[in-house]
Amino acid sequence: MAAANLPVLIRRTPILPVAPQASEVGRERLFVKAENLQVTGSYKVRAAFTLIKHLSPPELNRGIVLASSGNFAQGFSYAGNWMGIHIVVIMLDRTSHFKLQETAGYGGEVFLCGDDAINRQSVVERVAKERGMVAIDTWEDRRLAIGHGTVGLEIVEDHPFLETLLVPVSSGGLAAGIATAVKELNPKVKIIGVQPERANAAYVSLRAGSVTAIDYWDSIADGLSAAQPGALPFLHIQRYLDDIVLVSDSEIAHAFRTLFARCKIVAEPAGAVAAAAYLSGKVTQDRNTVALVSGGNLSRTMAKQMFDM
Amino acid sequence: MAAANLPVLIRRTPILPVAPQASEVGRERLFVKAENLQVTGSYKVRAAFTLIKHLSPPELNRGIVLASSGNFAQGFSYAGNWMGIHIVVIMLDRTSHFKLQETAGYGGEVFLCGDDAINRQSVVERVAKERGMVAIDTWEDRRLAIGHGTVGLEIVEDHPFLETLLVPVSSGGLAAGIATAVKELNPKVKIIGVQPERANAAYVSLRAGSVTAIDYWDSIADGLSAAQPGALPFLHIQRYLDDIVLVSDSEIAHAFRTLFARCKIVAEPAGAVAAAAYLSGKVTQDRNTVALVSGGNLSRTMAKQMFDM
Repeated sequence: MAAANLPVLIRRTPILPVAPQASEVGRERLFVKAENLQVTGSYKVRAAFTLIKHLSPPELNRGIVLASSGNFAQGFSYAGNWMGIHIVVIMLDRTSHFKLQETAGYGGEVFLCGDDAINRQSVVERVAKERGMVAIDTWEDRRLAIGHGTVGLEIVEDHPFLETLLVPVSSGGLAAGIATAVKELNPKVKIIGVQPERANAAYVSLRAGSVTAIDYWDSIADGLSAAQPGALPFLHIQRYLDDIVLVSDSEIAHAFRTLFARCKIVAEPAGAVAAAAYLSGKVTQDRNTVALVSGGNLSRTMAKQMFDM
Repeated sequence: MAAANLPVLIRRTPILPVAPQASEVGRERLFVKAENLQVTGSYKVRAAFTLIKHLSPPELNRGIVLASSGNFAQGFSYAGNWMGIHIVVIMLDRTSHFKLQETAGYGGEVFLCGDDAINRQSVVERVAKERGMVAIDTWEDRRLAIGHGTVGLEIVEDHPFLETLLVPVSSGGLAAGIATAVKELNPKVKIIGVQPERANAAYVSLRAGSVTAIDYWDSIADGLSAAQPGALPFLHIQRYLDDIVLVSDSEIAHAFRTLFARCKIVAEPAGAVAAAAYLSGKVTQDRNTVALVSGGNLSRTMAKQMFDM
């Protein structure tokens, strides 16, 4: 299995029960897979190592260019630093200072490209060509989805009574990787994607039956920046996802506070959307549910904002 | 071993590496034992279940009275609720609203007794007598120290290269239980207690060579409220602890922020003191160190306060 092929640097993150009230402790139906406790603070590092293993030594010597809203940046920069591979990350100007600082801290080179999320990949291709580096398309690369899938394998192994799995959706790679892995192991598990109300390109595309771009984007969940799903992930989403549901920013902030106060863990907004779908009643609450907390990389300012929302 | 006798409700909490900077990830010398991720948000529930197992059915029918600054209250209330035992907790008026609310949420009966920490136990004895309940002296009860010791056993098992162990100290029961367990297994491990500068009764007592009460108390660490160490714990502290070091409130707040931003976990001030001792350089940083994060029960207000300190 893919899980067995991850390096020891990757942590087997815990599955923690979530009781919205003290009186419910010990009788929880909601659990979180805490990938915010993963090294670099998100699941992305799994895919980074998985991809690097698929590249040849000459390719690794040339270095890697990719686009990221922040967590892939940190995961790849850490993996690259660890293995001596130069990493350049194309990032939006609106990326939080925290994520930029951490990316640089892990040794990645940050290249800001404005705020056009859809055309980031053309910048990736251009920089890779100019510098003779390897361009990675994080939206479409099948090798990354295999890395994401290891999260699903661990959840199935560690929670044998799983009935519903909730997963954040941006360009769809994470949901595609997890849904494919989990459905092949246990087709009875319901897998539901979650998006913010105003960052809902995959939701819109699923309803439309084809990849559709949104011309708005407004959410506290800066990690879910995709204005359209990737083509390859979308095929998997259509095939394996049972539904996509939407949550508001205030529901995301409420989930952040619940995870903080009751589980003692820190979720970034994008990492809290899946728990928010359960806690706000957007999905049925009477099934054994695991919500993926995909990351915990957020600034102090954003944390304070969510305390007060 | 005591660890093997804990009920399944008690979680085996993880040991997580702490890198103060992104560039240090993968080369950490500091690790935390994350008992804030324990059920009820602190290690106290281990001792609660351990003590309950030692009581007879008639004693359990009478119910239990104890004093607590908040975390024993939650641990005992949860254990009592789970096993159908009436729990009354004598608490200081200055206890945070969060801890009072959670205690009641777990089904415990809260009895406020003013703000005299040293005379709490006389209130415990009086209430127990009036109501025919069993009085527990959390400062002196040997059975509780056995429960605390299970934290130490797990740390030794899960971190084979442990050289220094840092433990928060209030009345000393936790430090006594852990130090006794760990030193018997591996006498080479250095065990250092940590107290806030102005909540340092055990530190003062250790220097004086006998149990000494302090006539001041001022710290953000509301969980470390003891104005003197317990007599029995003090004997173990004298015998097994290598030293006690002191940390300031701003060092505690800095440790809270480091654990928040880099480990994605929430420590209450009392739970952050051990990590603060390492991060502030109060102990040597070149040994493999585990700092116990003893709890994560804090209000949103206190969290915001520590963000801004």
